Amino acid sequence: MSLVVRPSPAIWVDGEPATALPIPDRGLDFGDGLFETLLVRQGQPVLLDYHLQRLQHGIEALAFPDCLPRARDHLASACKQLIGTPWAALRLTVTRGAGPRGYAPPERVVPRTIITSAPLQQDRDELSAPITLGWAEVAWSIQPRLAGIKHLNRLEQVLAANEARALGVDEVVMLDARGLVCSVSAANLFLVEDGRLLTPSLEYVGIAGTRRRLVIEQLAPALNIEVVQRDVHAAQLEQAAELFCCNAIRGLQPVSRLGEQHWQDHPVCSALHAGYREAVAC
Amino acid sequence: MSLVVRPSPAIWVDGEPATALPIPDRGLDFGDGLFETLLVRQGQPVLLDYHLQRLQHGIEALAFPDCLPRARDHLASACKQLIGTPWAALRLTVTRGAGPRGYAPPERVVPRTIITSAPLQQDRDELSAPITLGWAEVAWSIQPRLAGIKHLNRLEQVLAANEARALGVDEVVMLDARGLVCSVSAANLFLVEDGRLLTPSLEYVGIAGTRRRLVIEQLAPALNIEVVQRDVHAAQLEQAAELFCCNAIRGLQPVSRLGEQHWQDHPVCSALHAGYREAVAC
Repeated sequence: MSLVVRPSPAIWVDGEPATALPIPDRGLDFGDGLFETLLVRQGQPVLLDYHLQRLQHGIEALAFPDCLPRARDHLASACKQLIGTPWAALRLTVTRGAGPRGYAPPERVVPRTIITSAPLQQDRDELSAPITLGWAEVAWSIQPRLAGIKHLNRLEQVLAANEARALGVDEVVMLDARGLVCSVSAANLFLVEDGRLLTPSLEYVGIAGTRRRLVIEQLAPALNIEVVQRDVHAAQLEQAAELFCCNAIRGLQPVSRLGEQHWQDHPVCSALHAGYREAVAC
Repeated sequence: MSLVVRPSPAIWVDGEPATALPIPDRGLDFGDGLFETLLVRQGQPVLLDYHLQRLQHGIEALAFPDCLPRARDHLASACKQLIGTPWAALRLTVTRGAGPRGYAPPERVVPRTIITSAPLQQDRDELSAPITLGWAEVAWSIQPRLAGIKHLNRLEQVLAANEARALGVDEVVMLDARGLVCSVSAANLFLVEDGRLLTPSLEYVGIAGTRRRLVIEQLAPALNIEVVQRDVHAAQLEQAAELFCCNAIRGLQPVSRLGEQHWQDHPVCSALHAGYREAVAC
């Protein structure tokens, strides 16, 4: 094992270098906030517009005052510090800030931004090695008011990630409370079926991933592959011609195993990855 | 309006006076933690055992390492500072502490405790003034793995509290995703029906309040009133002989109005309050 000296993660609170979050903060108290995890290449955030648009949806869903311009400015300042770093993962968190005791937000809300970044050791241009999946026991609860956005209430995903570790798999498929497929714990999920791509619709559960959107809007159309967003049943997964996951940091990840089913080749995922490479080259 | 000088809230992190939380912390990142809000009378936490037992259930549900003794020690130290304060609200938060990026907890978890306290201006011995209720639009999502415990994922309650403000009522009744009554946003709910008390069962949703437990285990039995925990339908509420809410800080709160229905007298709630007074006198 080689010894790699990793720089400490960098942290900014409201645009200033920091090591701690002022208390009280409603992000800590109630998970009253949102986050985005961005891949940053040489100081350039990848798919920034997609991230900011999802953040804006969250700001509206939670009825935060308009804080997008400020968050964008703080993000830009943090990214400047990452010029010279080949690849970094940057987390932007926006909370509803301080408030008195109780769930009701204060009359005057001053949102806070918290940014943390850490260099990534691995090159992000290459297609990820195939991953193994299991089935999560914990379900993703149905909440149309919060579906799609990336808020800070993520205990179900934490429980699922714990299950993945216990099962010895890379990720677990989460069903929702209706028994329909949602995603894996930290990435969206696509199936190849009859030459088309299927992915669960996310009106009631789930997080609308930036890479999911990229596949739907850009990568699949560029290859003339149809994408359908709809209810996906558990039984469809093991029967799929191919499965892959995607998220901002890992990119596209072909699936090599789910339960008893194995997949050796991932021609569709590999083909889509060529477009993905270009997209992250920004 | 009289000018009251209020002391600043006191804050401790891991038992030390503090003003900020070290970053990263999984409590902020994912709501990966638990909390208790205690009523403290002259430095004495009221119903401490009930609070610690619920906290322990949460620690087990989230698979935290055993951190109850440490949390109890930090709580005891904070309470010592409140001797001489007639009434205070103390919040004890326990998070899974620091961790690397991603939902999966680190191999070695070191939970953090965060305590904040603030004096309460109002005497807590008297029965609360009656409160008004409306109906929440946001539903409480069904998640048996997290039901009953008081975790940090509280966005649904934040949305509900926002709705209460918009409706101009003190609180809103939240239904669960099945359409059954759960509670109000920040308190449990009891109905008086045919001389019995009814309260929603909490296997799938809700928070198992310490005052709810006090009513069920001590206050109602002392008056020979039967308590039934079961499914409660929305239509039952407006037809109830009496409604009341309860939580740790507000105690028992009779309901004066819900929708078109008004209640002037609250004989059962008033009778239970006599026992409640004794319980908080500890």
